[in-house]
Amino acid sequence: MRILKGVLVQKYGGSSLSDAENIKNAATRIGKTFDDGYRLVVVCSAMGQTTDQLLRLAMSVTPDREPREMDLLLSSGEIISSTLVAMALRAKGYPAISLTGLQAGIRTDGLHGNARIASVDTTRILSEINSGNIAIVAGFQGFTDNFDVTTLGRGGSDTSAVALAGALSAERCEVYTDVDGIFTADPKIVADARKIDEITYEEMLELAAYGVKMHPRSIELGSLYNVPIRISSSFSDQIGTLVHGGIRTMEFGIKVTGVAYDRNVAKITLRRLPDRPGVAALLFERLSAEGISVDTIVQNASLDRYTDISFTVGRDDSDKAMETVRSVAGELDVYDMVADSTLCKISIVGSGMLNAPGYASSMFRALADADINIDMITTSEIRITCIVPELKVEEGVRILHKTFGLGNP
Amino acid sequence: MRILKGVLVQKYGGSSLSDAENIKNAATRIGKTFDDGYRLVVVCSAMGQTTDQLLRLAMSVTPDREPREMDLLLSSGEIISSTLVAMALRAKGYPAISLTGLQAGIRTDGLHGNARIASVDTTRILSEINSGNIAIVAGFQGFTDNFDVTTLGRGGSDTSAVALAGALSAERCEVYTDVDGIFTADPKIVADARKIDEITYEEMLELAAYGVKMHPRSIELGSLYNVPIRISSSFSDQIGTLVHGGIRTMEFGIKVTGVAYDRNVAKITLRRLPDRPGVAALLFERLSAEGISVDTIVQNASLDRYTDISFTVGRDDSDKAMETVRSVAGELDVYDMVADSTLCKISIVGSGMLNAPGYASSMFRALADADINIDMITTSEIRITCIVPELKVEEGVRILHKTFGLGNP
Repeated sequence: MRILKGVLVQKYGGSSLSDAENIKNAATRIGKTFDDGYRLVVVCSAMGQTTDQLLRLAMSVTPDREPREMDLLLSSGEIISSTLVAMALRAKGYPAISLTGLQAGIRTDGLHGNARIASVDTTRILSEINSGNIAIVAGFQGFTDNFDVTTLGRGGSDTSAVALAGALSAERCEVYTDVDGIFTADPKIVADARKIDEITYEEMLELAAYGVKMHPRSIELGSLYNVPIRISSSFSDQIGTLVHGGIRTMEFGIKVTGVAYDRNVAKITLRRLPDRPGVAALLFERLSAEGISVDTIVQNASLDRYTDISFTVGRDDSDKAMETVRSVAGELDVYDMVADSTLCKISIVGSGMLNAPGYASSMFRALADADINIDMITTSEIRITCIVPELKVEEGVRILHKTFGLGNP
Repeated sequence: MRILKGVLVQKYGGSSLSDAENIKNAATRIGKTFDDGYRLVVVCSAMGQTTDQLLRLAMSVTPDREPREMDLLLSSGEIISSTLVAMALRAKGYPAISLTGLQAGIRTDGLHGNARIASVDTTRILSEINSGNIAIVAGFQGFTDNFDVTTLGRGGSDTSAVALAGALSAERCEVYTDVDGIFTADPKIVADARKIDEITYEEMLELAAYGVKMHPRSIELGSLYNVPIRISSSFSDQIGTLVHGGIRTMEFGIKVTGVAYDRNVAKITLRRLPDRPGVAALLFERLSAEGISVDTIVQNASLDRYTDISFTVGRDDSDKAMETVRSVAGELDVYDMVADSTLCKISIVGSGMLNAPGYASSMFRALADADINIDMITTSEIRITCIVPELKVEEGVRILHKTFGLGNP
């Protein structure tokens, strides 16, 4: 007799499901976990290149990306991979059933292309896993009150997985990707980058926001529902990195946890705005209404009753953001505006930095010594970020990794 | 102001949506019809090769075709084409919205792979078309009470289109394909085959069952709800063939309407069955329970308390049918069974044949004179069908087309 353990959620990324061989490998791993007695929910991304193929198809018809139609189109990518994973499991003799976002009860708001999960109705999933099935859920997608299909935007499948783990009170959410976990810096750039064994939600959040594998949304959800998240490679049996809310047992005494970077940065600057109340509010309200996620914001000190505002967005959003700014330019009474897509973010992250002086100045000094100009600076309690020229970013990461002693001893 | 006319349903087949160019052409036609003032519902098949690609993907993972998973997988093909058609229309400035089978309210039974439509809830479609949108519906698919996705089997998108036309009391259902309409015989085989302008449901039903473009299910539905169906090419402006229930105004005085053939024939013969009550019932109940559609059935006269039963199925169903027969072989007490996939159906169809003697004998004589052996014979009120060797089928079609004077005068 099969003794039922708790619920486990596994998520497989596109690179882990890129072809039939990888799908079968994922099925082997899923089967093993099921044999261990877990009630198992598996969230699938679209196979490697599927989303790009669908985007190319759409582009061949029209350059307009109508959000509602794009969502329905793209959602088929995860449905295809989910059904294939379910079939691969059944071929191995495991009872698996694939579910769309709708069937999995993932209800969202109506913001097509970047929808937020409103609630998860677990009735169907629970009925499947409690009756002995492995539930294979199409990630990245949900549905509205009107039964329209939505997608969750960047990092969507991670968000699906963590949301389901939270709603099902899962023991853990395992995220399988093509890297062995979270590293102190990108191993492609820094030769002696080390894998981190454990990391807090807050640190991971800062790292994720700055280019490391998982999207911050899913980490936020994990933190909110206290779901431990293990990030590891589907191509090895390495234990990966555990993201959780508890006290770190490893890395003790190290102040900086990792160095992150993000090439997906476009800066927009509005020059000579009248320095009066409500200007920033109007600008960012309008950007928010358009679903544009604004990252760093810097406003210079007022000069002569005029001020400059710079902010960064993802490069995909750059044109839309400029358009939005133009549409309120009259109301804002702005002198001119300019977009720059040649920049990059580089950050150091670490809980240990809190209340410890000297980290910011060490970072600025190290970059300055390497003749890397800093365009903007932002900080949080556990992160210091500089916006630098994209051409200098790899050098910057290597220098900071060395400066803060993150390499192998 | 836009004066709203009645509802029109258009269906575009896979060849009419095979690439971006064809999708844009379909959008042009759809736009023109919309400009005429119709409230418009468009049903899309999957793009040309999509379904085959999805089948190959599935085969690369497992040879098993688990029906529920296959349905969910394949349904994405029609979703992709529908969203692309909607986007192509929006790019031309038309208000279009794509709907899945579920969103379009097409509720079915749970027979995956070959589901039957139970009901159509037109609420969402009506709300879209009455508010000025063109509703683009993914064909071939529906959903069960449990929100599982089903597919409608062969001819599924035609069935979706006619069912929607019926439920919406549409003026007409227009089926766009890659041929100019229904012909007196396959123009690829018979050089002087003529296009038929009008044809009754009953005649079309017989022709459709025997290889001509539309699946009989959709014609039956058309007949049931009295939906006029116009079959024409999306690549020309020819008027096509109108299928309806009224009195034919053309073709008057001609007895045979057309010659049809179907290569998709597998014959299964059960030899030396005990000739006792219930044997045939048991056999065909079991085949029906497996969702296998049986076509021609012939039972020979009893000999020595034993009998032979032959029946034909589609070639795709041949293996499954043999398996099913084997599973009841013990109960049936059958001596042996054999499958033959080298046969073909050839039929003459025409309302005029009713009560007119001599057509059957003319047909058999013409085939005999050409040395074409007849394996089985079946007839309906308006059709005579012979099962003949596949190698002889084209010759047979040409001979019958000539025998019954169907060519251009």
